[in-house]
Amino acid sequence: MTKVPERPATATITRRSVLGGALAAAAAFVRGTRGASASPIPPRPATPEDATKLLGRPPIELGQRSPFEQPRRRVNRDLPSGESETPLQDLGGIMTPSDLHYERHHAGVPALDPERYKLLVHGLVERPTVFSLQDLKRFPSRSVVRFLECSGNGYRGYNEIKKDWSPQQMDGLTSTSEWTGVPLATLFHEVGVKPSATWFLAEAHDAAVYSRSIPVSKALDDAMIVYGQNGEALRPEQGYPARLLLPGWEGSTNVKWLRRLELSDHPFMTRDETSKYTDPLANCTARLFSFVMDAKSAITFPAYPAVVPAPGWWEIKGIAWSGRGRITRVDVSTDGGRSWRAADLQEPILPKCHTRFRHLWKWDGQEAVLMSRATDETGYVQPSLAELKAARGAGTFYHHNNIRAWRVQPDGRVFFALEA
Amino acid sequence: MTKVPERPATATITRRSVLGGALAAAAAFVRGTRGASASPIPPRPATPEDATKLLGRPPIELGQRSPFEQPRRRVNRDLPSGESETPLQDLGGIMTPSDLHYERHHAGVPALDPERYKLLVHGLVERPTVFSLQDLKRFPSRSVVRFLECSGNGYRGYNEIKKDWSPQQMDGLTSTSEWTGVPLATLFHEVGVKPSATWFLAEAHDAAVYSRSIPVSKALDDAMIVYGQNGEALRPEQGYPARLLLPGWEGSTNVKWLRRLELSDHPFMTRDETSKYTDPLANCTARLFSFVMDAKSAITFPAYPAVVPAPGWWEIKGIAWSGRGRITRVDVSTDGGRSWRAADLQEPILPKCHTRFRHLWKWDGQEAVLMSRATDETGYVQPSLAELKAARGAGTFYHHNNIRAWRVQPDGRVFFALEA
Repeated sequence: MTKVPERPATATITRRSVLGGALAAAAAFVRGTRGASASPIPPRPATPEDATKLLGRPPIELGQRSPFEQPRRRVNRDLPSGESETPLQDLGGIMTPSDLHYERHHAGVPALDPERYKLLVHGLVERPTVFSLQDLKRFPSRSVVRFLECSGNGYRGYNEIKKDWSPQQMDGLTSTSEWTGVPLATLFHEVGVKPSATWFLAEAHDAAVYSRSIPVSKALDDAMIVYGQNGEALRPEQGYPARLLLPGWEGSTNVKWLRRLELSDHPFMTRDETSKYTDPLANCTARLFSFVMDAKSAITFPAYPAVVPAPGWWEIKGIAWSGRGRITRVDVSTDGGRSWRAADLQEPILPKCHTRFRHLWKWDGQEAVLMSRATDETGYVQPSLAELKAARGAGTFYHHNNIRAWRVQPDGRVFFALEA
Repeated sequence: MTKVPERPATATITRRSVLGGALAAAAAFVRGTRGASASPIPPRPATPEDATKLLGRPPIELGQRSPFEQPRRRVNRDLPSGESETPLQDLGGIMTPSDLHYERHHAGVPALDPERYKLLVHGLVERPTVFSLQDLKRFPSRSVVRFLECSGNGYRGYNEIKKDWSPQQMDGLTSTSEWTGVPLATLFHEVGVKPSATWFLAEAHDAAVYSRSIPVSKALDDAMIVYGQNGEALRPEQGYPARLLLPGWEGSTNVKWLRRLELSDHPFMTRDETSKYTDPLANCTARLFSFVMDAKSAITFPAYPAVVPAPGWWEIKGIAWSGRGRITRVDVSTDGGRSWRAADLQEPILPKCHTRFRHLWKWDGQEAVLMSRATDETGYVQPSLAELKAARGAGTFYHHNNIRAWRVQPDGRVFFALEA
């Protein structure tokens, strides 16, 4: 910031700054016509020299981002298992814009017509029933703000370290939305689930006919069929027109494009829960039906590719979440885990939801290793990498909620550094 | 819903339903080439007959809405005072997607370059200072979920009734976002606001050089300079790169594209707070600096243009909010105000934020008049139209928070009916 004498602002906008933009645009155009650059530098958007001298643009039906702000998901388009990652380092607060919510599919995103949508609930029920979307929307509704996280989130960095992983690459398979729908308990009451029913199959209307087995107890706790996201209709990438929401449980069990629920007295042992989403353990057994996402935290600043410009006070920021309830504490270390101090938690602190944490840090210009450690209301504490490996072994591929680390170099550059 | 025999789902998707879509598309094309229709019926988007037989599309960098779901703001493009209205009847929960947030401008939306952004704070301060956007972002940050409402919201219907007003037309100038920024108290501490300063001017970088006078006490309470909205950067329509946020106060004081704050010992009596945003009262005085938005509620279903398809149980839904704090109660009447029953309030109930309410109603098929009435934590109760007119007179143009009414006809159609 600049201290100024006490007088009105004088324009610091020069003719050169505007011309600079025009020149950059011209240069980009030349590169474009030659087709030489794989990732050309986009021209800086033009803006008027003095916006007070020019009437602005009128409203339009849908608002738009500033051309200077273009957050993007990192995308793996390889079908069937495409994915997209939320740009955590670009976001503040706890809400994820719907078009930046992460994705992970098993046969791409199907195109479904809501008027032809049907949800069959059958098996160990008194009244097998087909629900239309309008049927689902007529039931008493509920809205909850909850995170969704892919159970594979953080697989990078468990057995391999790359300095130039960003928060998006490390942990971008988690997002938070406000979800609206009907409690699954309501539907189960409607169809008369039999006392002998202990599990149900949730089946998707995609080309994988993806399916998972879920305990009935979760349905009677807080499971929902959701058709709304962040105020509006659910997005196609999130299961339009309706998906299962199992708050706090691994994303892959929150079956999208839901078309069938079958009640049973045993799990179905589907391909999607045996060949995948099961973790081999070091003792030659396997961790199956590992539903709950344990407490975790991720620093979003400072983190690669951010640069800390100068020594002094900086705010370490991040998010923490737990599938078991509320986050009660996040500790931050700036010396690689030797000492810890409690960060501030931003209200509202909601159960099974991202919680924003912040911690003021005075950087002395020397190398520093930043870490965060979440604790939830059950008393569970986010483990170190060594602790997690001791419990799960090296061959596990899911539920990597271990503490991460970021090394701030004396030059201000920040790199991923899992083991300090 | 349909009760079915206990067997797996059979496809109800027919060849004819897909062909129907193609025929509609062809018909729309013919209409389009003739250019005859002012509002042609859009073709129904094509979807595969059986989505389980076709690999879906891969992820893309930004998610998209379903082609079947196209919520839109109603837009008045007439500059300088353009506006756009949030489609309240299409939304659930409390969050407003950023591209559906309402707008109200005085000289359109200026195009500003964040690298050239400057905020001058001067006047009765020890250290007049110019802050860059990066300066603002370096201070300890804060996120809050708060509503913004235009002080003119609801002006329709105060002296005029049209049956075919929707919730969007009646009350669409209110929206809720998660805002991220720096408390204004932090900036005022940084510049050393003098004890004699009691008011400050907030000036916009638009072609109106829009400006308003705000008491310093609000800055020391909960005012913020915000640069983030719903996780990402503030949208241009909302004041990019930074705006004033005065939680609970009329939207017009939350100055967008903020470029200057001048501390003073008196209000500035600007054009924008004397010729506008001042209410003439019946006793020939005027209501000036009427900052706080009083408690209000709006039913979003059933409401025009919705139709209640049949008698039976329906969920009356809506939102309530108060500029003075939390909503503590919403009462619903289905008989035009003769009797009232408490609605359910959806958690989280946040201060100065939309709160979703719901009430189960068994419609008997006879004419019914639906009303909602909000109460906030100060004990303030949303007034009737007659009560508000008695207090403010007929000539007032702002702060129309009176109870609304919707008439459900025996044929299921619903119309705006302010006075039951």
